[in-house]
Order: sequence, then structure tokens, then C-alpha cells
Amino acid sequence: MAFKIGLLGLGTVGSGVAKILLDRQGRHPLLGEMEITRVGVRSPDKPRDVDLPQNIFTTDLEAIATDPAIDIVVELIGGTDRAYKLIMQAINHGKHVVTANKAVIARYGAEIFTAAKEKGVYVMIEAAVCGGIPVIQALKQALGANRIKSVMGIVNGTTNYILTRMHREGGDFEPILAEAQKLGYAEADPTADVDGLDAADKMAILASLAFGDRIKLEDIYCEGIRQITSTDIAFADEMGYVIKLLGIAQHTETARETALDIRVHPVMVPTSHALASIHGVTNAVRIEGEPIGELVLSGPGAGSGATASAVVADIINVVATLRANPSNINLTMGCTHQHYAKVQSIADSINLFYVRLVVLNQPGVIGAIGTCFGQHKVSLESIVQKHIHDGMASIAVITQKCQESNFRNALKEIGELNAIDSIPTVIRLLAA
Amino acid sequence: MAFKIGLLGLGTVGSGVAKILLDRQGRHPLLGEMEITRVGVRSPDKPRDVDLPQNIFTTDLEAIATDPAIDIVVELIGGTDRAYKLIMQAINHGKHVVTANKAVIARYGAEIFTAAKEKGVYVMIEAAVCGGIPVIQALKQALGANRIKSVMGIVNGTTNYILTRMHREGGDFEPILAEAQKLGYAEADPTADVDGLDAADKMAILASLAFGDRIKLEDIYCEGIRQITSTDIAFADEMGYVIKLLGIAQHTETARETALDIRVHPVMVPTSHALASIHGVTNAVRIEGEPIGELVLSGPGAGSGATASAVVADIINVVATLRANPSNINLTMGCTHQHYAKVQSIADSINLFYVRLVVLNQPGVIGAIGTCFGQHKVSLESIVQKHIHDGMASIAVITQKCQESNFRNALKEIGELNAIDSIPTVIRLLAA
Ligand SMILES: NC(=O)c1ccc[n+]([C@@H]2O[C@H](COP(=O)([O-])OP(=O)(O)OC[C@H]3O[C@@H](n4cnc5c(N)ncnc54)[C@H](OP(=O)(O)O)[C@@H]3O)[C@@H](O)[C@H]2O)c1
Ligand SMILES: NC(=O)c1ccc[n+]([C@@H]2O[C@H](COP(=O)([O-])OP(=O)(O)OC[C@H]3O[C@@H](n4cnc5c(N)ncnc54)[C@H](OP(=O)(O)O)[C@@H]3O)[C@@H](O)[C@H]2O)c1
Repeated sequence: MAFKIGLLGLGTVGSGVAKILLDRQGRHPLLGEMEITRVGVRSPDKPRDVDLPQNIFTTDLEAIATDPAIDIVVELIGGTDRAYKLIMQAINHGKHVVTANKAVIARYGAEIFTAAKEKGVYVMIEAAVCGGIPVIQALKQALGANRIKSVMGIVNGTTNYILTRMHREGGDFEPILAEAQKLGYAEADPTADVDGLDAADKMAILASLAFGDRIKLEDIYCEGIRQITSTDIAFADEMGYVIKLLGIAQHTETARETALDIRVHPVMVPTSHALASIHGVTNAVRIEGEPIGELVLSGPGAGSGATASAVVADIINVVATLRANPSNINLTMGCTHQHYAKVQSIADSINLFYVRLVVLNQPGVIGAIGTCFGQHKVSLESIVQKHIHDGMASIAVITQKCQESNFRNALKEIGELNAIDSIPTVIRLLAA
Repeated sequence: MAFKIGLLGLGTVGSGVAKILLDRQGRHPLLGEMEITRVGVRSPDKPRDVDLPQNIFTTDLEAIATDPAIDIVVELIGGTDRAYKLIMQAINHGKHVVTANKAVIARYGAEIFTAAKEKGVYVMIEAAVCGGIPVIQALKQALGANRIKSVMGIVNGTTNYILTRMHREGGDFEPILAEAQKLGYAEADPTADVDGLDAADKMAILASLAFGDRIKLEDIYCEGIRQITSTDIAFADEMGYVIKLLGIAQHTETARETALDIRVHPVMVPTSHALASIHGVTNAVRIEGEPIGELVLSGPGAGSGATASAVVADIINVVATLRANPSNINLTMGCTHQHYAKVQSIADSINLFYVRLVVLNQPGVIGAIGTCFGQHKVSLESIVQKHIHDGMASIAVITQKCQESNFRNALKEIGELNAIDSIPTVIRLLAA
């Protein structure tokens, strides 16, 4: 008896899934026990490059989500509200759900997993974060023995592609974005990617698995890559760093409390760091745990085949488990968190900073900057003057670890000094 | 009701496992359902740094393997024959087995998994390959949708440590090996590591999971790092390569047949390659599959905590599955292969080569070398003369892809030329 799969969506990912299931030779033997019995799309008559019988297509997605004959609903339509409703309908009709939809899980994960737990069904989300990379399974299963200390990653391919090209070509953000759009590496509306929102969705999901708490998306500090210039890239190169858009989630412990430090922003990463050599659209996640130490997973974060690989892995896991036992839930496959995480404000976070200032080339400027940082308890690692012309100089400052609010207060005062023309860039930095 | 664990061995890995199970806060909730009820060691009175009651220690390991009260036997004594017998005893007494013993699995995997299948028990081996890195789970579960094309990795930390230091310091093999031994990164008898035998054990296991066939250890071509000199390291550096000891397993298809190309040997890896930046004792595995593309997993390949992390992950998986269902086997957790792989001989394999020759510095040498390679259907990528002194010159040749036997025949003829003094090094190479 084959497990019956209802596919919602047959676009980039959906058709990748169908291709795998229709071409089983040399893949996992359990694929032989799965059957795509219904497919929901918007345009049933659109020509498709997968060989599925026309009579299983429908535009009535609810009919699939509620069909008593279907065991597993695979949601691959994208978007939020509609997808959320369909997932909940499927769960409420006792179906297991596999989805690649990070937006829905990041926003409605709490409701979805609570409903799934009540109904005793699985909701599998491997493909929702970093495409083909098995990072969800690593957090849910392989690292189960560990206390996770931090999860840090390049979780958005578009921005990594743009930054990689900026480093290689010395170009500026806007023209490279335009080219990335032409080549299909960036969407027509690039906001979700370049402003870090897509990365924030993924970090919310990873952090809630790593630390066992629900995360509200609005609690995640989020800064994109629009303000990165070729000048900063060149300075970074010179100093032995690359600029990457990182998602970071870590537990911080102060005398008062344990809070979650979670954010998405550009980071100057030392070239010796594991994430520094992740180029182009490749994604990578570095997980630090006790006792394992540091684990890095890298691979394709998107694309039809890679994402479908993760979707089908989830289906295999569900089928393997159902087959062995249709009634009791396997505890390494669920996700249920009761509480919202207490999230640290970015002002309280501890960082190293790189800051670039444009100053009047006159004696005493470096001293004044150093003094002002010092007064706000910000110690400096280095302060270097470069590129003098027309009486103006660029100064690159790197701080030691400091509290973000102290740094910001110092910077505000520095900005008011007469000798300071402007402060074009502030980028947080990982210690080498 | 807690699942009862019998621990065979409480050394480096065993004590790491015990520490995790005795300190559960913040780890997977299923740890609360496991209990170490017996521990088998050689010296029960040895002081231990884990807090286990003295009365659960024994030297009678068979009594643990056959104890009707025990659910899961965790084999961490090392060695081959004794460990094999204990594992078989445990299986035959209906116990699930978790082991970190690559030597036993590489030699007796076939017998062990056949017995496990008959008895309906799990034998879990995550810790046997690459310590904490969840590469077994990736091959058994996460990549189930894929046809695996190749598995390639740095699977031995000792040799990677030595090669990394040779690159950083420009030193030679012997003195760095001696220091590695002093620092505990290499064993007193370094043979298994530096001659590639440990890596071959691991590749046998990875390849049999990736390609679904049993592998005979003696079929794996194996070459260690003893012959690598600082001269070769310097040449590699100059040309943009690093020398790594790689394990490689890939399917090759000729007109006649499909065979498995599996080997362990030093490789010149271009610095842009994902494995080039894996330094020191870190391990990494790169898996190429269809449709996923390229996935790289890197992390600690050994050590008490990292290896214990993998052992405990396996225990968690077994417990989660047993808890949901004590009777039917979950098909993503077993390994059963019926057939032995047809392994390609190294002579038939296709490679690029780097070869260093010491020659008399006289006209026509380069031409003679080039002609001889050409006569054996070996095309050259580059041929560069360097380091001339005392009338002798070093020549570095890089070939294009060629059949190994053709290359060896050419090299034999070249070695007989009057102008050739010696051919100190041949290293296979990955194309940039
Ligand atoms: N693409 C990737 O590389 C990637 C990677 C990771 C995760 N994801 C996630 O995977 C999901 C799917 O992405 P995708 O790239 O495959 O999307 P896509 O190519 O736009 O495909 C969407 C599919 O859903 C159908 N659909 C959409 N809205 C519908 C509606 N209201 N009613 C009926 N059918 C509807 C479409 O039907 P028609 O074919 O008739 O238009 C199409 O088949 C998204 O959540 C995305 O975030 C994608
Ligand atoms: N160490 C690593 O980093 C690492 C990494 C991956 C895999 N592994 C694998 O893990 C396994 C264990 O390695 P390890 O480093 O933990 O070894 P170890 O430190 O030498 O510990 C071996 C343990 O087994 C006990 N033992 C050995 N032979 C015995 C016998 N004949 N009878 C009773 N007890 C015996 C020893 O007892 P006493 O304590 O009384 O001497 C000791 O507790 C090996 O298969 C190894 O290949 C190790």
C-alpha cells in the first residue's frame, strides 16, 4: 500500500519533488511506497515538464487538504495566509504536512505545531531553511545530545551572491543587484532578500529549534546590505575580512538573566573563519554546541532540485515512521515550544565594530575620536587613517568588544565633532 | 520507564557519553528516558572522572551483552575481534547496538547488519565516521531523495593536522609527525593514520551507505602521506593548491559497466575547493548528489565530547523509535546491503597528476618528457622547470585527465631516460 501524497503547488520546488518521485531508480527504496494522487495549482492547463496525468490536477486546494484519501499534504504554493489556512486544514483533517514555506513557519509556527501536536501529525520543515542543507534535522536529531550555544549562518543566497561579486569585482551594490535581477538571482522586488527579512524568517525557525523557545519575528533586529559600499569592501579586504550578511542566534547570560541574542546584519568576517569561504548563492550554517564544538553545514540554499531533495527527505522520514508505526509520534520529529523567548535588545548586545569616518585632515582628529570612544567605555583595537585627498581623510576604526549602546552614544558625540564630515558605515565584526 | 543502557568501555568516548547522560539539563528531553545500568571496563577500580555508582562496573563484558534487562548496548572498547563478538552477542540477545568502532564496521559490517536485520534490532554507527559530524545520518536519511554521485572527504584528523602544519611551517613530515605524537594528535604507532588505513575503514563505511553495496577493505586503493616533502608543499602553494589526504568514492561508468572508484591518497586540492580550507584536526565530507548538488559537512572528527555527541544522537534516535513503536523497524535507520561492489582497479581510474622530477639541466629534457607522455596518450597541462643547482633541475609536470595505467607506463619510460635523475613525487590532483 502506497502513501498518498497531495501536492499543493507544482512550481519551482513542486515540480522538483514530482520529478524525484517519478524517477525512483537509485534513490531511497521508500520512494516506492509514495504516490502523488492529487496536485493543486492555479492554472491546471499550463504546460508542465513533469509527467503527471491531467486528471489529478485541480485548482481546488482545499479539496486536497481535506481529502480523506490523502495521507501527506505537501505545501509548496508559497505566500502566507492562504498557505497557513491550507496547512491548518490539512492538520485538522489528520494529515501529515511537509512544507518549504519559511514565511508561514516563521509567522505561524506556534499555532501550526500546537495543532499538529493535538492531532498527532507531523509537520516537517527541512526545506524551509537553507534549501537542501539538512540543518533542521541536525538541530532536531543529530545534535540532540548538545546544549546549543550559537547558530550563525549565511542563510540568504541572493545577498551572498551580491556580496561575493562586490568582493570579486570591487563593484557597488546597486549595479550588481541590477545584474543579479537580470540573471534571476534576485527578485524584481528584492526587499525581502537585501533587507534581511528572508534571513530573519529563517533565523526565527533555526533559533526556536536550537533554543527551544518561540520567537516573535518583530523581536529580531534586522539590517540589510544596501549601505555596503565598494570602499568598505576594499577596506575589509585590506584588513583580512570579508563582509557577509549573517544571521546570528546565541544565548547570552548576564548576572540578571539569560536572554536570546538574535539578529541579522552584515558582519566583517575574518578570512580564516569557516563562513568566510562560502561564496555565491551557497548557504552555510555554523552551529556551536557543548560538547560537540563547531559543526558547519554548507550547500545549495535554494533551487528546484536542492529544495526538492529536502522536501522528499521529509516525506521519506514521515513514511518510514508511519510505516513502522501509524499511531505514536516519534519525539525526534516533532517541534513544540510553549514559551516565547526573552530576546535581548540590540542596544544591550555585545559587539566589535568597524566604523568608517570621513574627517577633515587636521591634527588631533584621531585623538579626539579615541578619547570620545574611551569616555563611553569603548576600547579600540585599531584606528587607521587612509585615502587623504581634498583635505579630507578616511579613518577606519575597529573597536574591541563593547556594549552596542555605549558604542552608539560615543558615535553620536563623535558625529558632532567639528572635524567629522560624515560617518558613512558601521559594520559589526567577528574577532579574528 | 527508562531504557536501560549497557556501556562497554568508559575511556575517551565512553566517559564523554556518560557525562552527557548524567548532565541532562538543556539537552534533548529523551535523555530523561535513558539510564546507564551497567558499565564494562578492564580495570574497574581505576579512578574515573564520571560519577557512576561503583556497583554497576564489571569486567565481564559478555554479561552486559547478554543481560536480559538491557535494551541498548553501547560498544566503545575499540579493537576488532573482541568488539565484534560482543556486538554479535548483543544482537543475538535482541539488543540494539550503538558503536563508534569504524574498524569493526568496516570489516564485519556485512555480518553485523545481516544479523541485526534478522533479529529486528538497530545497529547505529554515526560516531564511527568523522566523530561528531552527522554524515551517516545525512547518507541514510537527509539525502534519501538523491542519487549519490560521489563522497569525498578529509576523514582523518591526524594526517590533516600534519599536512596543515607542513603547509604553515614549511616543515618536513618526520619532525612534524614526532611533534604531533608528543602533543597527542598522533598515536605512538602512527601507521593506521599516516598510511591511510583508518581513512580507508571510514570510506568503506561511507561508500557502502552512499552506493548501497558492501565493500571489501582490501579492494580500496590506499596510499598515505609519508612521501610528501616540504618541496612538494612549496610547489603546491606556488601553484595555488594544498595537499590533503582525501578519501574518494564515486561511481564510474564506462561503456562496459558501472564500477565503484574508491581510494585514499594524497591529493593536490585547488585552494578554491571546499575541502582546501579544512585545517588541523577538523574533518569534512563533501557529498555530491542528484538533484541536491554539493553538500559539505565539517566539524570535529574525534575527541571525547564530539564523538560522544554522535553516540548519544544514535541512542536518542533508537529510543525515540522504540518508544513510538517497539516492534517494527524504521527503514531509514537500518543498513542492509546484499552485494559486494564491483570496485575499479586504480590502474583503470581516471586522474590528473602532479609529478616532480629531478633532471640533468640539459637541453631537450622537457621535450623528451613531453613526448614520452604524449606517446602514452597523456596530455599535459603544464611543465615547469625550477630550482636549478649543481647542474640539476626540478621539473613539475601537471597532466590533464588520463588513465592511471597510461600515466604509469609513461612514467616508467621517463624514469629510464638518461637525463632523469629521480622521480621523487607523484600526487593526484583535482582540477581547479
Ligand atoms: N524556489 C526555491 O528555490 C525555494 C527554496 C526554498 C524554499 N522555497 C519555498 O517553496 C515554496 C514554493 O516556492 P516555488 O519557488 O516553488 O514557487 P513557484 O515556482 O511560484 O510555484 C508556486 C506553485 O503554487 C501554485 N500556486 C500558487 N498560488 C496558488 C493558489 N492561490 N492557488 C493554487 N495554486 C497556487 C502555482 O500554480 P501555477 O503553476 O498554476 O502557477 C505554482 O505551481 C515557497 O514557500 C518558497 O518560499 C522555494
Ligand atoms: N577517541 C576518539 O576520539 C574516537 C573518535 C571516534 C571513534 N572512536 C572509537 O571509539 C572506540 C573507543 O575509543 P576510545 O578512544 O574511547 O578508547 P579508550 O580511551 O582506549 O577506552 C577504551 C575503554 O574500553 C575498555 N576496554 C578496552 N578493552 C577492554 C577489554 N578487553 N575488556 C574490558 N574493557 C575494555 C577500557 O577499560 P579501562 O578504562 O578499564 O582501561 C576503556 O574504558 C574505538 O572504537 C575508537 O575507534 C574514538
